[in-house]
Amino acid sequence: MGGDNAPRIVVRGADIARERYPDARFLFFGDKARIEPLVTRSRRLQGATDIRHTDEIVAADDKPSQALRRGRRSSMRLAIDAVAEGAAAGAVSAGNTGALMAMSKVVLKTLPGIDRPAIASFFPTQRGESVMLDLGANVECDANNLVQFAVMGAAFARTVLGVQTPTVGLLNVGEEDLKGNDTVKLAAQLLRDTTLPLAFEGFIEGDDIAGGTTDVIVTDGFTGNVALKTAEGTAKLYSTFLRRAFQKSPMSRLGYLLAKGAMSTLRERVDPRHYNGGVFLGLNGISVKSHGGTDGIGFATAIGLAIDMAADNLTGRITQDFKRFGSFDEPQAQAAVS
Amino acid sequence: MGGDNAPRIVVRGADIARERYPDARFLFFGDKARIEPLVTRSRRLQGATDIRHTDEIVAADDKPSQALRRGRRSSMRLAIDAVAEGAAAGAVSAGNTGALMAMSKVVLKTLPGIDRPAIASFFPTQRGESVMLDLGANVECDANNLVQFAVMGAAFARTVLGVQTPTVGLLNVGEEDLKGNDTVKLAAQLLRDTTLPLAFEGFIEGDDIAGGTTDVIVTDGFTGNVALKTAEGTAKLYSTFLRRAFQKSPMSRLGYLLAKGAMSTLRERVDPRHYNGGVFLGLNGISVKSHGGTDGIGFATAIGLAIDMAADNLTGRITQDFKRFGSFDEPQAQAAVS
Repeated sequence: MGGDNAPRIVVRGADIARERYPDARFLFFGDKARIEPLVTRSRRLQGATDIRHTDEIVAADDKPSQALRRGRRSSMRLAIDAVAEGAAAGAVSAGNTGALMAMSKVVLKTLPGIDRPAIASFFPTQRGESVMLDLGANVECDANNLVQFAVMGAAFARTVLGVQTPTVGLLNVGEEDLKGNDTVKLAAQLLRDTTLPLAFEGFIEGDDIAGGTTDVIVTDGFTGNVALKTAEGTAKLYSTFLRRAFQKSPMSRLGYLLAKGAMSTLRERVDPRHYNGGVFLGLNGISVKSHGGTDGIGFATAIGLAIDMAADNLTGRITQDFKRFGSFDEPQAQAAVS
Repeated sequence: MGGDNAPRIVVRGADIARERYPDARFLFFGDKARIEPLVTRSRRLQGATDIRHTDEIVAADDKPSQALRRGRRSSMRLAIDAVAEGAAAGAVSAGNTGALMAMSKVVLKTLPGIDRPAIASFFPTQRGESVMLDLGANVECDANNLVQFAVMGAAFARTVLGVQTPTVGLLNVGEEDLKGNDTVKLAAQLLRDTTLPLAFEGFIEGDDIAGGTTDVIVTDGFTGNVALKTAEGTAKLYSTFLRRAFQKSPMSRLGYLLAKGAMSTLRERVDPRHYNGGVFLGLNGISVKSHGGTDGIGFATAIGLAIDMAADNLTGRITQDFKRFGSFDEPQAQAAVS
């Protein structure tokens, strides 16, 4: 029931996702009277869905604490409960981000060895696609948090990018060892010293994000959130300038008509709907946040992420990684951080 | 002598700047044997330049401490000395950023009331142009630093954007009061409570940078540096995608030919040379860092910034602002920060 156009885009997203994942089955939580007619209209969803009615919803402006206290019968909460109970392999919501994060944490619990879950996402770069985390769950992070993000991000990159040993970069203001604050310096040292299921490439800078220098970009939730939104804003600005340039003269308008097909390829390439889905990593269960303003195509991308993560047993793999490579959690690292 | 193509682009930059500022005069510091023939070739620079010879230079990989100790006769140091002595209204260099910052701080000194100087720059947005600081001078900042950046950034915006009461936003991970870390929350409170020569608009997010929501964007040097470089990397990515799209088919290539003029307008609009120049704010004198890889056109932009700041008496205005609006530096703020 969350987001700007629920439940329409949610059911539409499931319909589109069924094309790519013909075995997928869906549990819809929310207003049955509104969901059922939408489901009935979809041929692809016949026999593959179950609707669990509830009147309650989490509002877009509910505080996470409010949602936790008062939203126990909300559609969002019931969807996450279904994951905890094993009735669903993952939850996908376009609703209130803070509430979804708080509920997912409380219901699904954090995996052993992980202090704080993080939000990760993937996006297009000069060299394919990359994954970045944390995108806003933790505005303050210590070195151990960043190291844990590196391990979780690498596991997510193996699933979503299909690379065996993902390269990982730590976002900083320069590439030299001396650059940055104490937190990133210590995190880099821990990542260099420890055997982890990833290839640590050291510090990277802001332009390496779109540059695709590494498969995984690790940073705190403050910097990551600002960087992600800065990239979105810059892409939008560039589109505006491009549109204005094409409108400049009759000649350029004709040029636009001829290049229209190419321009739609470009739009397709940077279409945020193909990269929709913020994944909560570090929880004992799969929970994905879709952009609130997306459409069916975008929601289908978020569903696809949840299905891929479930099929790859990402939660189990992160747990294993943390068991096998837990050495960064040893006392000397803890002492160095404090 | 600094940057990739000195002294050629430096003299060329002065030549171009003289067209816009016919009264400007230049002191060149460096290898006279290389500078003199370049100056002689420029008709516009005749009678408007003076060359001060020195053999010493600051290398691109010199550490700031090294440059300070061993570079007392370097071209960079002599240029900054000339500002301190009143022989020049401002120094412009395409050389080593860390060394330029360290030397500028030691030689020019920080203005009264300012704890730490910051690097500011301006760039194109959806609504014109905006100014952002700090872009990397201070990787860790407290709330008072951010408030001081707001005052200095507003003064710079008055000069470079020509607005009387610049709007100022504090970069954060959300717009609501509850969002962010303690530092930005306290800084917002101080900016709200104090009478300052600026219009404080509260928290803004990463997409507000290119969106042009406020004239001035205030943030710490870590986040600011990452955001600036993220925007640069994203713009470059978008250009790559655009180029590839135009090469897609004979039709789109023809479209490109027709829209070529419009595309060059677009390139012009986002041309980094028109926004070249990182300004060190908070010092008792003007010092501007040009991008090391720029050309004459870009270096002329950096020179123009220095001239505009000198003509506007920016240093004096910042000093006055801090005298008149020093209330945020009072004990209660200090206590709240610690």
